[in-house]
Amino acid sequence: MSETFELRSEHACFGGVQRFYQHAAREIGLDMRFSVYLPPQAQQGPVPGLLYLAGLTCTEETFMIKAGAQRYAAEHGLALIAPDTSPRGANLPGDSESWDFGVGAGFYLDATAAPWSSHYRMESWLMQELLDRVCTELPILSSRLGIFGHSMGGHGALTLALRHPGRFRSLSAFAPIAAASECPWGEKAFAGYLGTDLADWLAHDASALMRKAHCPFPDGILIDQGLNDPFLAQQLLPERFEAACALAQQPLTLRRHAGYDHGYYFISSFMADHIAHHAHVLHAIADGD
Amino acid sequence: MSETFELRSEHACFGGVQRFYQHAAREIGLDMRFSVYLPPQAQQGPVPGLLYLAGLTCTEETFMIKAGAQRYAAEHGLALIAPDTSPRGANLPGDSESWDFGVGAGFYLDATAAPWSSHYRMESWLMQELLDRVCTELPILSSRLGIFGHSMGGHGALTLALRHPGRFRSLSAFAPIAAASECPWGEKAFAGYLGTDLADWLAHDASALMRKAHCPFPDGILIDQGLNDPFLAQQLLPERFEAACALAQQPLTLRRHAGYDHGYYFISSFMADHIAHHAHVLHAIADGD
Repeated sequence: MSETFELRSEHACFGGVQRFYQHAAREIGLDMRFSVYLPPQAQQGPVPGLLYLAGLTCTEETFMIKAGAQRYAAEHGLALIAPDTSPRGANLPGDSESWDFGVGAGFYLDATAAPWSSHYRMESWLMQELLDRVCTELPILSSRLGIFGHSMGGHGALTLALRHPGRFRSLSAFAPIAAASECPWGEKAFAGYLGTDLADWLAHDASALMRKAHCPFPDGILIDQGLNDPFLAQQLLPERFEAACALAQQPLTLRRHAGYDHGYYFISSFMADHIAHHAHVLHAIADGD
Repeated sequence: MSETFELRSEHACFGGVQRFYQHAAREIGLDMRFSVYLPPQAQQGPVPGLLYLAGLTCTEETFMIKAGAQRYAAEHGLALIAPDTSPRGANLPGDSESWDFGVGAGFYLDATAAPWSSHYRMESWLMQELLDRVCTELPILSSRLGIFGHSMGGHGALTLALRHPGRFRSLSAFAPIAAASECPWGEKAFAGYLGTDLADWLAHDASALMRKAHCPFPDGILIDQGLNDPFLAQQLLPERFEAACALAQQPLTLRRHAGYDHGYYFISSFMADHIAHHAHVLHAIADGD
């Protein structure tokens, strides 16, 4: 294991550079992989950064291969950062038996229940280690970070943004798991990672967190949801988050798209709007603010 | 096997629809897969079509997942058609032993040597079966077809366009194998599929074909090539095709890009220009021309 960032590969892309890294993650105790896209503007100095969290079964490659985001990041001068979706190589009993728990399904939280609590510390890895190091070692502005994600990663984006006020200045999601404590995916993950106390669950439920907030993102939150998404009614529950935003006086643009499903053909179709949303907010932040 | 197109999946994408099909390919004697993107304009009537041929080891999915082409196809009103790169399921001796011959490496020609000649008939499948059927069963204009491709598929695009004058009205390529009879990939494929007669090889060599032509694409050919492509000097040989175009008085825009490699981060970076090139030519064709 290497404590420094180990560059696994890099590729010129839209005038910038697409990189794949690995490092020895202190908070996780294993090597972790992540990817970074640096736009051409980063050659002149630090640029705002946008953290993308992917869904169940994905890796640090999925977003960079499938979402078509680099073109827009290059246009708007944003860096993109995409971590892997769970620890790998912990070899815990049962960690590879299902696609919605364990490997590829870290849910972007710190597990408190054994045996997961030893390595499944995705929140601490991202918030107390990776983001700081990425912004130190690469030309990315720590004061101008946004976050977005898809499905489980939409859950991660919404919950990390609400649990760490001020850390992310812009927020959006594609088909997020919007109320994890009330859907089968979330119930399985929370029971396994957190145990049985409902209060612990609600601390990682995007809608529950929003209900206790007061307009944390005054520039608005953007969510896109396909109406042909097979997980919409049972797993995603965007109406819960919509109601919570109304209660919290949080401006929300929740767009429901006829015909679109849950995959990257849906995500790529609306990527331009998400990158523009983040760029608008992140570029408007005054220096020192 | 089904003689009709069997729709394996479809996904809304940029206002149009991304489809994956399978059919019983008469010319190949096996089921073959291909993908089609229909832009939103196809809901109002037939649109021009653009055939994309992928490189070694790819499938009918690769281009649609990685190239980010659907956005531009939707903007310009072009359909995209991407076939698989070889027969699958023939189970011929040695067909899966190497990544550059056999499965995933059909080279878009009809094999004449045993045992490949029984199923490896990619040229006949595409030119005498698939394109006709796609244009009959889907809203794609048979009179307004373009062709492009990458690496082995760039070889396929250049050679099929030159071997079938008039069938394709526009032509481009990313990092094509530009003189297959003179490089290791081509020599291995031609020896296996065609035998030892040099005349047979030259009939499937893009540069050799161009040397015998006279300005077959008066609107010009567009080729993009990365200068950090590890296959450039030994396998791709674009300078051979450049010299052939000069001899044939064929306008060629061959762009050499510092830093770019051989993969889809390179391809996606220049996809907009290729789709625009084809759209410009295909939309300008007069009805009945």
